[in-house]
Parts: sequence; C-alpha cells; structure tokens
Amino acid sequence: MSNAGDESLIIVMRRDATAEQIRHVLDRLSEVDAEAHVSEGAHRTVIGVLGDRTRVQQLPWEAFPGVERAVPVLKPFKFVSREFQPDDSVVMVGDVPIGGGGLTVIAGPCAVESRDQLFRSAEAVHAAGAKILRGDAFKPRTSPYSFQGLGEKGLELLAEARETFGMPFVAEVVDPRHVELVASYADLIRVGTRNMANFTLLAELGRQDKPVLLKRGFTATIEEWLNAAEYVYKEGNHQIVLCERGIRTFETATRNTLDISAVPVVKGLSHLPVVVDPSHSGGRRELVAPLTRVAVAAPADGVMIDVHPAPETALVDGAQAILPGEFAELMEQVRALAAAMGLEL
Amino acid sequence: MSNAGDESLIIVMRRDATAEQIRHVLDRLSEVDAEAHVSEGAHRTVIGVLGDRTRVQQLPWEAFPGVERAVPVLKPFKFVSREFQPDDSVVMVGDVPIGGGGLTVIAGPCAVESRDQLFRSAEAVHAAGAKILRGDAFKPRTSPYSFQGLGEKGLELLAEARETFGMPFVAEVVDPRHVELVASYADLIRVGTRNMANFTLLAELGRQDKPVLLKRGFTATIEEWLNAAEYVYKEGNHQIVLCERGIRTFETATRNTLDISAVPVVKGLSHLPVVVDPSHSGGRRELVAPLTRVAVAAPADGVMIDVHPAPETALVDGAQAILPGEFAELMEQVRALAAAMGLEL
Amino acid sequence: MSNAGDESLIIVMRRDATAEQIRHVLDRLSEVDAEAHVSEGAHRTVIGVLGDRTRVQQLPWEAFPGVERAVPVLKPFKFVSREFQPDDSVVMVGDVPIGGGGLTVIAGPCAVESRDQLFRSAEAVHAAGAKILRGDAFKPRTSPYSFQGLGEKGLELLAEARETFGMPFVAEVVDPRHVELVASYADLIRVGTRNMANFTLLAELGRQDKPVLLKRGFTATIEEWLNAAEYVYKEGNHQIVLCERGIRTFETATRNTLDISAVPVVKGLSHLPVVVDPSHSGGRRELVAPLTRVAVAAPADGVMIDVHPAPETALVDGAQAILPGEFAELMEQVRALAAAMGLEL
Amino acid sequence: MSNAGDESLIIVMRRDATAEQIRHVLDRLSEVDAEAHVSEGAHRTVIGVLGDRTRVQQLPWEAFPGVERAVPVLKPFKFVSREFQPDDSVVMVGDVPIGGGGLTVIAGPCAVESRDQLFRSAEAVHAAGAKILRGDAFKPRTSPYSFQGLGEKGLELLAEARETFGMPFVAEVVDPRHVELVASYADLIRVGTRNMANFTLLAELGRQDKPVLLKRGFTATIEEWLNAAEYVYKEGNHQIVLCERGIRTFETATRNTLDISAVPVVKGLSHLPVVVDPSHSGGRRELVAPLTRVAVAAPADGVMIDVHPAPETALVDGAQAILPGEFAELMEQVRALAAAMGLEL
Repeated sequence: MSNAGDESLIIVMRRDATAEQIRHVLDRLSEVDAEAHVSEGAHRTVIGVLGDRTRVQQLPWEAFPGVERAVPVLKPFKFVSREFQPDDSVVMVGDVPIGGGGLTVIAGPCAVESRDQLFRSAEAVHAAGAKILRGDAFKPRTSPYSFQGLGEKGLELLAEARETFGMPFVAEVVDPRHVELVASYADLIRVGTRNMANFTLLAELGRQDKPVLLKRGFTATIEEWLNAAEYVYKEGNHQIVLCERGIRTFETATRNTLDISAVPVVKGLSHLPVVVDPSHSGGRRELVAPLTRVAVAAPADGVMIDVHPAPETALVDGAQAILPGEFAELMEQVRALAAAMGLEL
Repeated sequence: MSNAGDESLIIVMRRDATAEQIRHVLDRLSEVDAEAHVSEGAHRTVIGVLGDRTRVQQLPWEAFPGVERAVPVLKPFKFVSREFQPDDSVVMVGDVPIGGGGLTVIAGPCAVESRDQLFRSAEAVHAAGAKILRGDAFKPRTSPYSFQGLGEKGLELLAEARETFGMPFVAEVVDPRHVELVASYADLIRVGTRNMANFTLLAELGRQDKPVLLKRGFTATIEEWLNAAEYVYKEGNHQIVLCERGIRTFETATRNTLDISAVPVVKGLSHLPVVVDPSHSGGRRELVAPLTRVAVAAPADGVMIDVHPAPETALVDGAQAILPGEFAELMEQVRALAAAMGLEL
Repeated sequence: MSNAGDESLIIVMRRDATAEQIRHVLDRLSEVDAEAHVSEGAHRTVIGVLGDRTRVQQLPWEAFPGVERAVPVLKPFKFVSREFQPDDSVVMVGDVPIGGGGLTVIAGPCAVESRDQLFRSAEAVHAAGAKILRGDAFKPRTSPYSFQGLGEKGLELLAEARETFGMPFVAEVVDPRHVELVASYADLIRVGTRNMANFTLLAELGRQDKPVLLKRGFTATIEEWLNAAEYVYKEGNHQIVLCERGIRTFETATRNTLDISAVPVVKGLSHLPVVVDPSHSGGRRELVAPLTRVAVAAPADGVMIDVHPAPETALVDGAQAILPGEFAELMEQVRALAAAMGLEL
Repeated sequence: MSNAGDESLIIVMRRDATAEQIRHVLDRLSEVDAEAHVSEGAHRTVIGVLGDRTRVQQLPWEAFPGVERAVPVLKPFKFVSREFQPDDSVVMVGDVPIGGGGLTVIAGPCAVESRDQLFRSAEAVHAAGAKILRGDAFKPRTSPYSFQGLGEKGLELLAEARETFGMPFVAEVVDPRHVELVASYADLIRVGTRNMANFTLLAELGRQDKPVLLKRGFTATIEEWLNAAEYVYKEGNHQIVLCERGIRTFETATRNTLDISAVPVVKGLSHLPVVVDPSHSGGRRELVAPLTRVAVAAPADGVMIDVHPAPETALVDGAQAILPGEFAELMEQVRALAAAMGLEL
C-alpha cells in the first residue's frame, strides 16, 4: 500500500499571512516532492499536503512565518500501522504464537537470582499452564546500588530451564553491545520501559532476527510507542510484540496506572499483538489478579506475570510477585474468562 | 470502632533537632489530646503519635522547627474506610441494589434533550437489561456557550420515563441550591467529576436522604476521592456509590485514562460500592465495549453507559454514546463475562 | 470585532467518506448558520467552516459518520481573548491597579484565624510594601475534619484591617449562596483552585460588580482556565485577574509544579492580567523566595504571598507561609528585579 | 561523612503483625548489617533502621508479611547529596566554570547541519557573550524518519568552531559505543532527556574524564534525576552538571512544562550545578526570552539556548530556535537581571 498520494498534513495559514509567506510554504513543499491543494477561505488559506509523511511531517512548519497550525492527518508511523497491514500479525516465540486470536500466558520471576529460585518458579508456572517463561539476566535499576542481574550466567540458567520444561523464554536486553549475546540465548528479547526510546538499542534489535517484546515507556504516548516499534520494523525485524505496563500519572496509590484503554486503541492503529504486564503496572501483589482478568477482558493477546517462590527474598520487585499457588488459582479465573471471550489459551 | 488509641502519624525529627524543638512538638500534641511515643535512635528522635487522626493530621507538622518528615499511618478518612466497616455496603436505588456481589447496569442518554430522545433511549436500554436509567437535566460545561441542560423540565421527563419503564433514575446536580429540587425527583443523585471537590455541594448532599453517586474527579487521587465521600457520610448520608470515570494523564489518544486499578484499590480501602463509567473515560464510541468488559472483570459493582438513539445529533458528548443496537450486543458480552465471574446481573 | 466570517473549524473527512456523509455534515453546518468551504483533495475532502465558534464548535463532529478529525482553529473563548481586545486590561482593586505594566504585591495570612494573627500579618506586609491584603474567611478543605474558616467574622476582621492599614483586601468565596455576603466586604473576590470549574459559582460572580481573582485549577489546562474566565466575563463582569498557582504533575518534591510558562502563554492569548501565587504552588517555605523572583522575571502582573506571624501554629497551610522578616527581605529582592525589568511597584 | 549510623529507613508494622513477623524483619536487617531500634507503640511496632542506605533501601520491605509501610528517611543517592558535600561543586568546561555563583550562558544550534549554519550561529552567540557553544552531531529522534545528525563530521565542525571562536563546546552522546569518540572532541558531553535512565550509557560516562551535562528526563522525578547523576559519580566521574528542561504534564499549550521549582529544590538536595534549557522546555520561540529570565531569577547556574540563523530551515526543532538578533537582545535582559541578582556573567 502506498500513502504517497494521501493528504498527510494540513497547514492552516494565519489570517494575516502574506502571499509571499504562502509561496514560501509551497516552495518548501515542492522541495520535498509533496503536492499541495490550496483552498482559499474567506479569511484564511488552508493547504492540504499530499506527499510522503516521513518527509513532510519532519519539517518545522509551525516555525514558518505566516503559519498558524500544521495538523498531521496521517500518523508518523507507517509499517506498523493497520492501514499498511490490515490483518493481525502473529509472532512466533519458539513454537508458541502471540497474536491472532489466542491468549498467551508468559510467567516466571522478574530477575533470575539463582538456579533454585528460577527452577521452582518455572516448574510452577509450567504446571499451571504458562506457555513462555520470563526471567531477566540484566536489570536496569533506578539506583546504582540495586542488584543489576546475573548477566550471562542468568541466560545460561534460563536456557537450561527451557530444556527442562520445554518452554521458550523472554529476557531483557539493556545495552546495544549485549544484543548479540542475549539473542544467542533468548527466544524473545525484551526492551524494558526505560529503554523504549533508546533508539540505538531499537535499531540494533531491528538488525537481528529474534522477535522483540517492546514495553511501553511508562511516560510514552501510544504514538511514541508505535514510533519506537517502527524503528525496529524499519531495520528489517517485523516480529514485534507490544507490552502495556502502566503509565506515570499523579496517582500514587499504585506504582503506575495501567492504561488498559491502550489495548483497544493500539489494536485499532496497528496490526502488532499487544500483551499486558499486570505485575509491574500495579506494583502490588493484590492487584495482579484483578489486572490480569482485566487484560483478558480487553482482550489483550497475552499477559506477562511475575511469579516468585519467596517474594520477600526477591532481589528485584518482590512487592508485586505472586506465589506459585496464587498463580495457579489465577489461571483458573483466566481460563473461565478466556472461554467467555472465545479466546484460545 | 475507635482509632483513638492507634498510631495515626509518625514524626521524624531532623538529626540536628534540639531538645526544645522536640518539646515544642510534644506540647502541641498534648494540646490536641494525642499521646506520643518517643523513640531515641542513634541520631534521630522518632515520635509515634496516638490520637484522633482528624485532629492530629491537620496540624502543619512539617512547618515545625526541627521536623524532617511527618508520615501519616492512618488514612485521613474514617467512616468510609474498610477498617471502620469491614462488610460491603449495599446501596438501594429505588428497589435496585448496587454493591454486595452483583453487577448493576445503568444506561441512558448523557443529557435529556427531548421526550422523544429520552424515551427511545430508555426503552432500548430497558429492553436490553439495564436496571437504572441515566439522563441529566443540569450539565456543567467547560464552555459557557455549550448546552447546559433542560433543567426541571428534564427531571419531569425522567420521572415520566421511570413510570413508563419501571426503572429508577440517576441525575446530576451542579448547584447546592438545586439539591432539594433534584432530590425530589431522582432516585440517585450524581456528583459530576468537576464537582467532586465542591465541598459545599457535598455537605448539602450529606444532609438529605437520597443516595449519592460520587464520580471521581478526573484529577483526584483515590485518597481525595474517599475524603470527598467522607464529607457526605459525615453529614449523615451513608448511601454513597463511587464512580471511576478516568483520570487526566499525558496520553491524548483517549479523552481520559480509565484507572481500572482504582476499582480493586478502593475496594481494599473502603466498604462503598464502585461502578465504572466506560463512556466518559475513553470519550470514544469504539472504546465503550472493551472498557465495559474490563469493568466486569475487575469486577466493579456496576457500569454506567451512555446510549443515544442518534449520537451525531447529541447536544452533549455525542462522540462517546453508543447506539441502542450496540448496547444490546454489549449486554450479551456482559452477561457472559458476569457468568464467568460469578456475578449476578 | 466579529469572528463570524472567520474559519473557526476545519473538518477532515475520512478517505472512504461517502458523498452522503459529506452532505450530512454540510447540512448540519447550514443549520447552525455556518458557511463551508469544501476542498477536494486527491483522496480526502477537507471542509473549512466559517461561523460563530460558540455554535460551531459545540457539535460532536467526530461522532459524525465519515469524519476523521475536526480541528478547531479559533479558541473556544472569545471575550477574554487578545484578538477581541488587543490592549491589556487593568483591574482596579479599591484604588490599586493590577495589570498594565506594574507589579502588584498581595500578601497576608492564608486564613484569618484571629484578630491578633491577622493584624500582625497585615501590619508587617503593609510596612514592607504590599499593596493588597489577603486573608480567607471561608476555606475549602480536602478533609472534612480540617478548619473551614471563621466565616463572616473573618470578613469583619479583614474590613477592620483595611481601615487600619489603608489596604484593600482579597478573600475567597466557596459557595454561590455567599457571593453577596463576600462581595459586601471584599475588594477582590477570589475563586480558589478547586472551584475554577464550579460554573454555578462563576456565573454568580459574573452577575455582581466586584472584581474577581480566578485561580487556575491545579489540574486545568490554560484553555480551560480561560474558558472559566469567559463564564464570568460573559455574564457581565469584565474585571478579572488570573492567578497561576501550580499544577498537578508526577513530581512529588513540591506540592504542585509552578507552571511559570503559563504567564507568557496567557499574556499571548488574553488581555487579562495574571498574577502568581508562589506560596501554594511550591507548598514549602524555602521555595517562596525563588518562585516570587521567578514571577517578577516572567514578568507576571503581581504576586500573592502567604505571610504568617507564627507558621507552625497556622490552622491552614502553615508549611508554606513565610515570616514577616522573611517577607521584608524578599521585598528587597523584588524591588531590585522589578527595577531591572522596568516594572513599577 | 558517613551515614552508616543514621536512621535511613523507618518500618511501620501492621497492627496485627505477629512476633514472628517482626523477628523475620529483624533477621533480614541483621543480614544486611543494619541496626534496628524497635519502638513498641500502644498498638504497633515501629522499627527505626540504622545502616547503609544503599543496602537497606533495596530490600522489598513492603512485601514482607506484617509490614504496613517502609518510609525512607535518607534519599537513595549519597555522593551527589549536599549532606555528603556541603559546598557547591564547580565544573570546568575547558576554562569556563559552571557553578559557584556565576551564570554561564551556553548557546548555539540544536543540531549541526552544515559548516555555514554552525559558524553563523557560533559567531553570533560568541559576539553576544555566550561562553560555551552547543551543537549536536548525534540526535535521538522520536520518528525513525527524522534527521539523525551528521555524526563524526559534525564533531569535526564543532572542534573547528571551537578553534575559531575560542569557545569550548557541548555535544550529545546517544550510544555507549560512541562515548570515546564524542569525548575525544567535546569539552562537555550531554546526556539527552530520553537517555537519562540509560544506565549503560551513564556508567560508561562515569568511566571517562570529560564533564557530563545530564538533562533531566522529561518524565523523571527529581529523585530519579539525582539517582542518575549518582550512577555517573559512583563510577568515578565527579564533574556533573544537571540541566532542567521541562517535564511532561497534561498541559499541551507548551511542549513541556518548565519545572523551575526544580532549581531551588535540587540546590537544596545536591551540590551539583544546575542549568536550565528554556528552548526545549517551552518548544516555542516566543517563550525562550521569558523562560531564560526566569532561570536567571531562580537563579540557575546557567542557561542553554538554541540559536539558529534560519529556524524555518532547521532540520531539528526549528520551532523553538531564536534568531541571532533575538539572542543579542535577550543577553541584554540577562545582564540586567544577573546584575540585580548579584551573579557574575
């Protein structure tokens, strides 16, 4: 599909714009190969701009003399948009699909802390029906004094757990220099919320061939999030899963505010699958079950849940991890709701 | 239950606080009949305060010389807290209960615009299974040039619809001088999001005996919202239903961000029932169905949905009203999810 | 000035909009006496709408079938806009002007607590050079258990202080039923941040003839704030002073975030004077001096400062009040900066 | 200074906490070498924790059974705190100091686009009195289709401008693999707002010896910002300048909301110098002058201003660049205000 001929921008001139100022705008449009439809109102000139959004929208139109407003009509992202690809993307993680009408459950500890901790968690989530294991070997931490992860040793343990339980795994990457390393172990590479706008890292992930789980920046708009996905897609990697995990608001009763509306909004704008992280958005153990149910009812394409055999000893984010037994109970509720929604688990 | 003997506040003195400064704090505590437990650390004095939170917490402790921090332990609200009343409150609206394990559906037009519009909407929502009718006669509008409602004429039409369809109705009040008037017609009186902190109006509602539906201010924290409910309760009216309707965040893809986490958080803190307004939070028609489903899965005690026979002619908030046919379809989904959740409709 | 002939709205139709859908839009425009300039692009129709913004902008255009976006060109407020009145408004408070190139200092206690407290504060701020006294008799409080003000007794004390020190005073009104009472005493009536969108109260203030100080809602956009001013103006009262006092953000180090950019932005959009409240925005005593200096440099048309003879005994907001001696020192800095800015004090 | 003996945390147990739960907390405290002062209230146990904040605060105390709240007393950062170093840090950029009572003006184009553009801007800002040149060779852009910078060629041009005008320069780094390259050219290395929480990059910058200008993440709290500075400091690089550049709020009239209160707040918490970027916070040319004045009055230790010879041709952020002539005029105002504030320029 080509958008080249579509109006991608509308420029509204000021009431007092001069003919020369209008000419200046038209000249710059012509330099970026855009076509202009000029409409003379009673008092204002309005210019509908046809041309490649990626060239047209990056000019600073509102800095041009005589321009009152420049209103983008098309979104700044292209390949990840639903108009580019009307059908849902399905991303394969090992042999587990995400997207396309099912509900994929990802679970495990936030960080890999030891073989015992990982395996107890993995065994429990596998038994209860999770399809993908989570666990991080590299952690970006707000304080430099917090636990930063086991590094490659953690990845080795995750790979061992994959063999033992027959589950592919997802792990985070925080440094562009580690992409190759993480990709050599993980089935799905996660970009954490603090790195959503780390364009260097995104570009690197776009140039390798493992699928990418892109968490929403906790302060990013949906449009910025899809722009970030576009970075990965544009470099050649089309296997992208989005993950909503709560945004920063004025409310302090929860760590972040789960933006559940983002699920249907993104599904309207993009063909990429969207999963929800009910653990990190709420930041409190007792919110994991209700926010998981909410994700199923939206419906999201999956959920990703922190499960820890002993949360109060967790080195990272223990406050929100649920126990293996709680996870098993939650899976019962998930199954009932998924059935009511017609989603295959 | 009495909290008088409980620690309601902890005052942490600065490292360099003098004996005189500590004495000053203790003197003021004694003036408000609070007891102090003084703990001498290696470098700091920490004072645990026992006393009535409503007297203790309103003093400006952090303005006292030598005080580093004052940390409230108890919430500032009392009567609406779950520690005050452990069991769920059930509020009767006419003969329809809200709270206590069921799911109550409230639906109808945003504003009453005409007899025809109201009755077409009421007939449709009644047929599809709604239990309470919504419709406003007074509207607070951001622009002084927007439609402000039909006034008493609107209330008369709502009362007529109540007779015709056998449904109690909820209507908004915006002026303390209208409380008596609205209460003489409506079965449930709504406080809109812009009036949640209109304490004059809240106090007036606390002194009459119709139940109150208190919408969350779109910029209010959960604690402020429960404080607002406390205003009503304290004046003598204990029939209060809370309504989550989205909060203002940086995201502009939706009108507001539905804070679905608020449902389980409030249910932990308070015994009052909580319903969700999926129409005003998203502000877009296509979000009404997913956000309604999400509310059922939380689960909220009810949902309140805008239904308009011809949204594009609506004088208020047409962008988010769904059509009668869409509402009927949505009710099918609600029934399936409520069954999976074990909620009686 | 008439805007009737100006484009106030631009409607962008969807690519797949039908001729019938376009016709439907044009019909509704004609019903509200608006003229439409239709521009056919290569793929989309764009409609420039000429007509009264107050009628055109309130229709729910984005709910119309076939409409992609409706972009307002003119702001929704009219009388308070600078295009309506290019010259700065000057508001007289007693014989003290606000606006028009000077810097007016308003100071005094947050709430009137006693004759002694008020007079000690008033004497000090008068001696240091403040021109208008502040002090409230009615306080809207988040908790129903906090001090709510002395009521009419407080107004009497303020009137007595006015006589003694020869300073006009500003006081808050929180209830539409008290407008007449407060107006019978005060020289300037303040609408607090929680009541900025209390349209009932605004309309009442628009129908009396004392000037109004309209604080920005701590969660209101600049556009909503100017809409609130329009409510007052439209009812007939043109003496309006705006007051920036900080907005709610994610930052918790300060009570609110002073939006100092709002001063130049509002001055670009409106002819009304704007003062700054450095006390309530920061919520901390040590921020009062820097935020006052910042307001002078913006420059605002004035500042309003809490001064209390004994902040730690204050019944309201003691944490942010400065001492009389601190105020006198601050006035020295204010004088130096005002001189550098060419502002008359 | 040692904080080891100071209370760094206060743990408030629940009313119903068991002796075993209290014992569990005390055991874990002892494992991290912390000392506990246990205070038995009438109904609750409160534990004052003495120990290294960097070990104590990272445990998930609120996930421990029986714990109601854990309140940090000390901030999580240590070396950048003012209690660690009471005197202001002065950072030397080439031979230009930032901090210690002066006002340092940094100016130049946002991005280096060509030799001609850079030199025209540099010549103008040098003539008007700027002391440090700004200009970027690597740009992180929200859209992958926007101009990403000239790369090393840009750095070469900046070095040439340094020779010509005798001004040190600041340039951004976006990739940890480019740190060595950028450090080999620039006098001051900037971390952009999107990379403030890119801990990999921060650690790399901590291990080289050029000073670092750390912009505040537009969604970061002040505490997170100082934690980010701690990352750099802890790795060995103590030459850090902070830069406030606006935060994301609900207000859309400006690109971001300049949080001017952050200047005095940070100066209270930290010894590091703080400069303000009035260009990127407002995002609009007409706000640059007022926001610059505001920064001087705060006072910040410097300002950083975008100056472009032809903003409407700018490839990056043209909407906010001011013209050389406007900059010269602004410098006059800056000089007058700095004199009134007693700041050396």
